[in-house]
Amino acid sequence: MATDFPEDLAAGYGRYLQKGYVRFREAQERLAIYGQRPEVMVISCCDSRVTPEGVFHVGPGELFVVRNVANLVPPYEETEGQHGTSAAIEYAVKVLKVKHIVVMGHAQCGGVRAFRETANAPLVTGEFIGRWIKLLEPAAIAMACMPVDKLDDPQLAMEYAGVRQSLKNLRTFPFVDAAVSAGALKVHGAWFDIGSGELRVMDPETEKFEPCLAAGADDT
Amino acid sequence: MATDFPEDLAAGYGRYLQKGYVRFREAQERLAIYGQRPEVMVISCCDSRVTPEGVFHVGPGELFVVRNVANLVPPYEETEGQHGTSAAIEYAVKVLKVKHIVVMGHAQCGGVRAFRETANAPLVTGEFIGRWIKLLEPAAIAMACMPVDKLDDPQLAMEYAGVRQSLKNLRTFPFVDAAVSAGALKVHGAWFDIGSGELRVMDPETEKFEPCLAAGADDT
Amino acid sequence: MATDFPEDLAAGYGRYLQKGYVRFREAQERLAIYGQRPEVMVISCCDSRVTPEGVFHVGPGELFVVRNVANLVPPYEETEGQHGTSAAIEYAVKVLKVKHIVVMGHAQCGGVRAFRETANAPLVTGEFIGRWIKLLEPAAIAMACMPVDKLDDPQLAMEYAGVRQSLKNLRTFPFVDAAVSAGALKVHGAWFDIGSGELRVMDPETEKFEPCLAAGADDT
Amino acid sequence: MATDFPEDLAAGYGRYLQKGYVRFREAQERLAIYGQRPEVMVISCCDSRVTPEGVFHVGPGELFVVRNVANLVPPYEETEGQHGTSAAIEYAVKVLKVKHIVVMGHAQCGGVRAFRETANAPLVTGEFIGRWIKLLEPAAIAMACMPVDKLDDPQLAMEYAGVRQSLKNLRTFPFVDAAVSAGALKVHGAWFDIGSGELRVMDPETEKFEPCLAAGADDT
Repeated sequence: MATDFPEDLAAGYGRYLQKGYVRFREAQERLAIYGQRPEVMVISCCDSRVTPEGVFHVGPGELFVVRNVANLVPPYEETEGQHGTSAAIEYAVKVLKVKHIVVMGHAQCGGVRAFRETANAPLVTGEFIGRWIKLLEPAAIAMACMPVDKLDDPQLAMEYAGVRQSLKNLRTFPFVDAAVSAGALKVHGAWFDIGSGELRVMDPETEKFEPCLAAGADDT
Repeated sequence: MATDFPEDLAAGYGRYLQKGYVRFREAQERLAIYGQRPEVMVISCCDSRVTPEGVFHVGPGELFVVRNVANLVPPYEETEGQHGTSAAIEYAVKVLKVKHIVVMGHAQCGGVRAFRETANAPLVTGEFIGRWIKLLEPAAIAMACMPVDKLDDPQLAMEYAGVRQSLKNLRTFPFVDAAVSAGALKVHGAWFDIGSGELRVMDPETEKFEPCLAAGADDT
Repeated sequence: MATDFPEDLAAGYGRYLQKGYVRFREAQERLAIYGQRPEVMVISCCDSRVTPEGVFHVGPGELFVVRNVANLVPPYEETEGQHGTSAAIEYAVKVLKVKHIVVMGHAQCGGVRAFRETANAPLVTGEFIGRWIKLLEPAAIAMACMPVDKLDDPQLAMEYAGVRQSLKNLRTFPFVDAAVSAGALKVHGAWFDIGSGELRVMDPETEKFEPCLAAGADDT
Repeated sequence: MATDFPEDLAAGYGRYLQKGYVRFREAQERLAIYGQRPEVMVISCCDSRVTPEGVFHVGPGELFVVRNVANLVPPYEETEGQHGTSAAIEYAVKVLKVKHIVVMGHAQCGGVRAFRETANAPLVTGEFIGRWIKLLEPAAIAMACMPVDKLDDPQLAMEYAGVRQSLKNLRTFPFVDAAVSAGALKVHGAWFDIGSGELRVMDPETEKFEPCLAAGADDT
């Protein structure tokens, strides 16, 4: 075949066939016939270091996954235009009727960094990125109002603020809000530390990010 | 903690810490310090049955991943509005300077099915999905012009046509086109069969989808 | 006379004078004095094999006929420019107050074939044809969404879809829609098979094309 | 069938099947298989009293027919938009390679009358008709410059002038002009008198309309 498909990817796919597919074969055959019924949607970053299926160690059929730059949820908008993330949220809530939506931020997020570096400069990184990460503006405003002790790691502070804002935006979708109010859907914030593998989860009352596993929990 | 984070996810994360993280610990520590340098971007579907890192059997740091409904690339547009997928493509090409972009479709795609089922009906599944999958319209037109022998599986024909259209749309981004013309970037079409695990790759000349691995190649 | 008018046409006109005109002389004299009052408008193709007056076996004064490539009705458009077909529809509905509009497609339509052959290629047949048959795009989308059993004859499927789309477009003209709603006008879809002479009529409820004459009806 | 297709038309179609189709059956079967190869294109009016196939007494496959209000040819225009008549001309010349184009006007033309009645008034007959028959403006200017003896029948004078202008406009299409210059295509003006059945043909040198058949010719 006159294709120049990357050899590394083809080789990786070969390993998948021998390992991953063999392991999940029955599940995949069943999923192909009966369709997917994931109970969880994850909104995560495109970052190559953050794979939701990896972090939650799940096989096929478990997570409905949106990945965009900086794991952002736009606010509900009735304007024209193609809203990819909004479409995915609508599909997850209305069609798949997922029970949970997890917005998962992460450390060293390049989208957050681009926002912090370009806010006072021309959008050097380009027209689309610049406009997309404008969605972080409310998070930046929230962060600017934090007490000083929260600002010793401004990159982290904005990563957290970004997740909080995305959760707020999620609730602006009438069908999300209705499902949450009816108790049929829960929304969660999370944050993943690439280097240490630590996952933190947002406490919905305090809006603080706490370790997902209590101390000692990881040795059970 | 007053969180109601799903127990299944927390348990899965516990398994990840003991297995996935242990396995890739060094890589992740290094990736946290030096940043990501993926050479491949994959544009894939949100579908819970299609995980690019799984299909290509790669660890953290390898794939920059966009996932949206029906793995669509919008055409280059200079209009206002937040274009999440376009922002990710710009980030991958301009900032990360990836060498390959793979648009990966898949069997039983619910976005494609929604398009085929709703084109002549009210967009019952909602406003965002309806507008988003309008991006499939050129693919539908291409499909309507296919010879009859390509139309015996219209769902598959449109899945293929959708990938081809996304590849065309990719080339409408000036920075993508420039990188491809300069030989610095290659774009690829692929299609994954959930049930059989088969991956097909588009021949760029014939635009046909052929098995990624030649017969017998998967047992080497 | 220094004319080079085709001899065949002149000879044909001679035959008309002896046959057609003699037959309809009174009608034509009356029509010349009192003007036309056709109750039916037919929108048909330029194709030399499809003559509405022939297929409906009517004499002068019966059918107000638009003929364009692929019997297309454009959607109502308020833009500048000369819209010949729209002007004819307006004349038929507002001035002549016709009671019926029949959009008649036909087999082996070259306009439909040109669309199917050129959609993925340069519009080799030229700028005007290419732009004109773009009006078939919504029909192509509708066709791409048909169940597989409708796609075994894609040329026919698109001929049908083209008629359906033209009927939809007809209703976008406010004066057409108002007349239909008031019960003063009916719109019909039809399709003519050149080889067999069969005429099919669209059932307005199912949108299926059925034989115009029930079995045996043609020998009454 | 739940159709309300006009009974008159269905009955007429029944007569066609027994007469017209039987008469031309072999020709139609052949035309369905081998396609159309008409050597003549006729641009005629939608008027129900003017049927080109009738006036030239020809069967299926002979005439490629455009019919629009007032048998007008727009000038060649490179603007966007759907130009139905231009598309048909292009198809006839480039694809079918017809040898003759006949622009056929006729007596009591409603389009010409609408122009003459509305030129100094609001376009009471509507937006599309008004814009379409603006194509007659150059014909009106030409007519306004005629000597007085040509103006005793201004309706006729403008019908003639309209045909002359359409012939001029035809030549503005580069592919028409090239074919005419190469001797591969001839363009003709004609005018049909509904009441008397007389056909007049334009002398290309004098631009006068003369009887198609010389005196006595009709009794040969």
